Amino acid sequence: MRPSGRRNDEMRPVSIETGFLNHAEGSCLIKCGATHVICAASTGQRVPLFRRNTGLGWVTAEYAMLPRATNTRGRRESMAGKPSGRSLEIQRLIGRALRSCVDMATLGERQITLDCDVINADGGTRCAAITGGWVALRLAVRRLMEDGVIGADPLIDQTAAISCGIFAGQSVLDLDYSEDSEADVDSNFVLNGRGGLIELQCSSERIPFSDESLAELLALARSGTDELFELQRNAVS
Amino acid sequence: MRPSGRRNDEMRPVSIETGFLNHAEGSCLIKCGATHVICAASTGQRVPLFRRNTGLGWVTAEYAMLPRATNTRGRRESMAGKPSGRSLEIQRLIGRALRSCVDMATLGERQITLDCDVINADGGTRCAAITGGWVALRLAVRRLMEDGVIGADPLIDQTAAISCGIFAGQSVLDLDYSEDSEADVDSNFVLNGRGGLIELQCSSERIPFSDESLAELLALARSGTDELFELQRNAVS
Amino acid sequence: MRPSGRRNDEMRPVSIETGFLNHAEGSCLIKCGATHVICAASTGQRVPLFRRNTGLGWVTAEYAMLPRATNTRGRRESMAGKPSGRSLEIQRLIGRALRSCVDMATLGERQITLDCDVINADGGTRCAAITGGWVALRLAVRRLMEDGVIGADPLIDQTAAISCGIFAGQSVLDLDYSEDSEADVDSNFVLNGRGGLIELQCSSERIPFSDESLAELLALARSGTDELFELQRNAVS
Amino acid sequence: MRPSGRRNDEMRPVSIETGFLNHAEGSCLIKCGATHVICAASTGQRVPLFRRNTGLGWVTAEYAMLPRATNTRGRRESMAGKPSGRSLEIQRLIGRALRSCVDMATLGERQITLDCDVINADGGTRCAAITGGWVALRLAVRRLMEDGVIGADPLIDQTAAISCGIFAGQSVLDLDYSEDSEADVDSNFVLNGRGGLIELQCSSERIPFSDESLAELLALARSGTDELFELQRNAVS
Amino acid sequence: MRPSGRRNDEMRPVSIETGFLNHAEGSCLIKCGATHVICAASTGQRVPLFRRNTGLGWVTAEYAMLPRATNTRGRRESMAGKPSGRSLEIQRLIGRALRSCVDMATLGERQITLDCDVINADGGTRCAAITGGWVALRLAVRRLMEDGVIGADPLIDQTAAISCGIFAGQSVLDLDYSEDSEADVDSNFVLNGRGGLIELQCSSERIPFSDESLAELLALARSGTDELFELQRNAVS
Amino acid sequence: MRPSGRRNDEMRPVSIETGFLNHAEGSCLIKCGATHVICAASTGQRVPLFRRNTGLGWVTAEYAMLPRATNTRGRRESMAGKPSGRSLEIQRLIGRALRSCVDMATLGERQITLDCDVINADGGTRCAAITGGWVALRLAVRRLMEDGVIGADPLIDQTAAISCGIFAGQSVLDLDYSEDSEADVDSNFVLNGRGGLIELQCSSERIPFSDESLAELLALARSGTDELFELQRNAVS
Repeated sequence: MRPSGRRNDEMRPVSIETGFLNHAEGSCLIKCGATHVICAASTGQRVPLFRRNTGLGWVTAEYAMLPRATNTRGRRESMAGKPSGRSLEIQRLIGRALRSCVDMATLGERQITLDCDVINADGGTRCAAITGGWVALRLAVRRLMEDGVIGADPLIDQTAAISCGIFAGQSVLDLDYSEDSEADVDSNFVLNGRGGLIELQCSSERIPFSDESLAELLALARSGTDELFELQRNAVS
Repeated sequence: MRPSGRRNDEMRPVSIETGFLNHAEGSCLIKCGATHVICAASTGQRVPLFRRNTGLGWVTAEYAMLPRATNTRGRRESMAGKPSGRSLEIQRLIGRALRSCVDMATLGERQITLDCDVINADGGTRCAAITGGWVALRLAVRRLMEDGVIGADPLIDQTAAISCGIFAGQSVLDLDYSEDSEADVDSNFVLNGRGGLIELQCSSERIPFSDESLAELLALARSGTDELFELQRNAVS
Repeated sequence: MRPSGRRNDEMRPVSIETGFLNHAEGSCLIKCGATHVICAASTGQRVPLFRRNTGLGWVTAEYAMLPRATNTRGRRESMAGKPSGRSLEIQRLIGRALRSCVDMATLGERQITLDCDVINADGGTRCAAITGGWVALRLAVRRLMEDGVIGADPLIDQTAAISCGIFAGQSVLDLDYSEDSEADVDSNFVLNGRGGLIELQCSSERIPFSDESLAELLALARSGTDELFELQRNAVS
Repeated sequence: MRPSGRRNDEMRPVSIETGFLNHAEGSCLIKCGATHVICAASTGQRVPLFRRNTGLGWVTAEYAMLPRATNTRGRRESMAGKPSGRSLEIQRLIGRALRSCVDMATLGERQITLDCDVINADGGTRCAAITGGWVALRLAVRRLMEDGVIGADPLIDQTAAISCGIFAGQSVLDLDYSEDSEADVDSNFVLNGRGGLIELQCSSERIPFSDESLAELLALARSGTDELFELQRNAVS
Repeated sequence: MRPSGRRNDEMRPVSIETGFLNHAEGSCLIKCGATHVICAASTGQRVPLFRRNTGLGWVTAEYAMLPRATNTRGRRESMAGKPSGRSLEIQRLIGRALRSCVDMATLGERQITLDCDVINADGGTRCAAITGGWVALRLAVRRLMEDGVIGADPLIDQTAAISCGIFAGQSVLDLDYSEDSEADVDSNFVLNGRGGLIELQCSSERIPFSDESLAELLALARSGTDELFELQRNAVS
Repeated sequence: MRPSGRRNDEMRPVSIETGFLNHAEGSCLIKCGATHVICAASTGQRVPLFRRNTGLGWVTAEYAMLPRATNTRGRRESMAGKPSGRSLEIQRLIGRALRSCVDMATLGERQITLDCDVINADGGTRCAAITGGWVALRLAVRRLMEDGVIGADPLIDQTAAISCGIFAGQSVLDLDYSEDSEADVDSNFVLNGRGGLIELQCSSERIPFSDESLAELLALARSGTDELFELQRNAVS
């Protein structure tokens, strides 16, 4: 029995409110249960050095948590002088995940920056950031097309992410914090809209896991992301 | 005529949604027009060095803007390695303003930290942070009393803040960004619930100002904060 | 009775020694009682990004205290890795104050940087820095004119600053440290040579202040800056 | 055909030279082809805050590359002011991987720090660091036992890691840099001595991957780590 | 012929004004020609970790230049985020030089910090800092004795420093900036009051130097420091 | 009697293994007893600002120790946020020492960066870095010539360094750590292949030293560097 009373294959309620910010080219507030993330896509002219004069675009991400997104107040990263290793690791994942669905030549030599700021955390923040980040990206790209800046659609697919894990001996979908902190195995799956695997991170926290467990978790992730893809499509239509 | 069509003494619509965050002891989302600030009050045991073993409490604040709270994306302060001078100046003001309404002996040797994070900026963010910060502080202090941690109420008054300025030759209340960036004089007033002045910052941006202008701005600020005090009381009751 | 025995409207003795540094285009050592500040104006070609190719100049300031300017040794800011919030707040004020008296088009696309380094502190350091900073600025600008770099005088007025406060229930001019640390209200006034208000910062440290107190402090500040303007004129003539 | 001429399931030659450093409690130089990593285990009394007075030990890791471990010189991280996101992400992985084989109660309240410094890089540095790190850890733990500091062996298993990927449409074992930079899928597997999965990171660089590919990569990783476990045992015996 | 017209063995005029700062336990402004350094000695209770509970004292130094001590404005080190390598190297030298004349057991477990701030630079700043630093140290130690904090005098000798160099083929004493920047060999000698060598740093800037040159420079340094020792004694008596 | 049983004028065994790194244009592992340093020379197009468009080259160095090069683990400098003062001082010395043997016009407008990373420390690390650094520099310059990038040889001499000191009342050559930490005088000599002095640093750690001691140490250094020059020539031939 899960602490929340959910079935093993049951996600938390997910809502996506688009246009949450006034200024960003694309934005949303995504809520996965009590995990709330503001995702903002900003379109800019400057690309990283390695992309200059290549005609290719770039997508990158920054991730942070408000100090009181968590149960006890965390130190503000700007006061600490640098983002934590955890934040950097997560934002690198978000960037890779969202780049996977973009044709960089069609995007052209410009950069879209995704800012994913967690305002309330209850497990699965990186997955919510990817799922909501895609929505913000979709909206920003659409505006580029509507403004006639780019002629074709550089978004070649959807991208969404969900966590799975082994909790109390059972494979479960979409861990909340109370499960995450007790799980034997914790994993994050990034998939594309056709079910292709984009990225997979799976860690044993207590006990090693078997190939069978991995297959179970993957199946759960597929069913979860199928739901998320539909929610994304609804949000941006 | 103001860009927004408001009368000179007309504030933007203000709303205060309490309990916006799950974990903070007190929190709200305050919206002053298109300026939106999340205010979170966190109660902790650790006081600054200069308060150790004095039996006296402390109230402090941190202020930041999400990178895309503004029209063009700003650099994330954690990536820059430190808060900007502007952020530090503002959070010092918020801290002073909110300490003015707290009896530190009654609070006892504990610290309340106010995190004021601007998610959408349209002028007057520091004033919104103070006004919303008081609400978060009120809620956190109430919880301390309800939990029996402190016996008496350390909040001796309300505190609210509003900007005023001279725009197009007229004294106006509550500048939005389009006014702020064109104003001749820009000022921020912090008052307490009995109309006492807590802090006053007044800068000429283009032309020096006279004693008469100062008096006019002060009168506008009094009428504005009167409204805010009522909104605060409604929010926390 | 003030600790120093001064009348309520009596400033400390002020002296301004110009040419204190060999290399700076303009410099002085200003002493306001036991508050001693070295002010240096450096003329450079580089303007901030937002002024590039505008034909307009810029004036900026940096402020710091030597570690042993104070009663107990303070940590050197370079060792701490960044200027304190207090230093940043003060140098922003100095910059705004001195920009107010400069016609940026006449100055042309160049920057003057004011370095204000407190070597001995006894209250009122930011005001001394502004008053002395104007002298250094005046000298540096004069040199630009003498060198034929600029044809007309970009300095459109004088700028000076003085602190006032409510100490032991009395409005007093030019607080020294012993008064400052006990004052109920602490304020800094920046005025121009024609009595126009440039900037006003007024904080209640203990008790809120009334409109009448504000008017009293303003009158004191006017009389104080009148003296300072004359001292500035003598120093640069 | 792989650039190196290796079979798809063929690892590069691996050598492990123990005692490479004079001072470390355990150390080795591991060479996996042209990837060379110095691994040093340091035993200390100080545990992280969250382990104080718990009686439980901790294992942590730091990872870095010498500036000229790579084809073009990289900026030294100490000059950059902080470790890169990549370094932090990798050292977090190494730490998790090596903690998985330690019984923290048996280790007792002490910390072992693994320093993994890459002196020559040719792909697979994080895997080499984990495999060599285990050897250094084994030696440091053995010394603790020989010195009578701990009575029982806290190492409950071996840990090793290997990269796999899809290169030119084929699943291959142990990518070198020339393969890594061209691979469609890049993955790192951490396994324990009984074939249990400790951690799995799998990223599509160009094209999404299928469940079948994942299974193939996993099988390759099992055969690779079987070799590594034997090399580890030989090195420490 | 030296640019200044001085003889090869002629120092610049040196003056030492004691009590230059109000707050420091010992202080002076030392002027060696146009090189002006404020030296402040601060007595504190805190010693470095490696001296805790040893009963032994410590002497340390910090060195910096005001941004406009030099011909062109230098970046303020607090804005750069850290002291330059040059500053760190110099302050380590000053610390070693001044520790050489202190009996740490007699000083007792306390630290004296020397702040050496260059306000005007014209070559030889580190030497001026050492020579003036000794004066500040002497005054601070005397106060400790007068206050009865320590019973015996921990200062076992004088310490002074002077630069020498080979300029235009000649060995010369006390290089100013115009000589320093053109010298073939640049050296700094720290001696004690009995002529013992404390530290010697000698660098060829253009051409290697011979043993004979070294002997010549050493003889010049002896004559120069003899003068400095007398000036120090006069300053503190 | 020295702890190691060496004669007073006896160096530790020195070995130089060239080509230790795969990627660097020149590299070696130098071992001076138990002091082991990896030296890598990287050739680049970018010169420092002050060399731009001068046609002149530059040689610079960076020095660091692996955390466990020493008896107790040191904090990694990238985690501390900056190189230590000691590291900066040493790398400045290495840079000066190696620049002394390079004709910058012949090198042309390019920079060679020497990375000197100590993997095992037992005294004399800066001297080993200079001696090994020259070998790496020699190899990198040779490659530039072989590649036809430069026509003539910019290396005008050899450079090597050795430490000497006064230990137990005796002048000794090449101090190891056990001697270094107990020495009365500690010195580092940098010489060129014709016996010219490039740099000399001599510090009394406990007692001042005389001119005679200095002469003795210099003679020892000459004999030591004579050996080193031959080892360098053998290594690069």
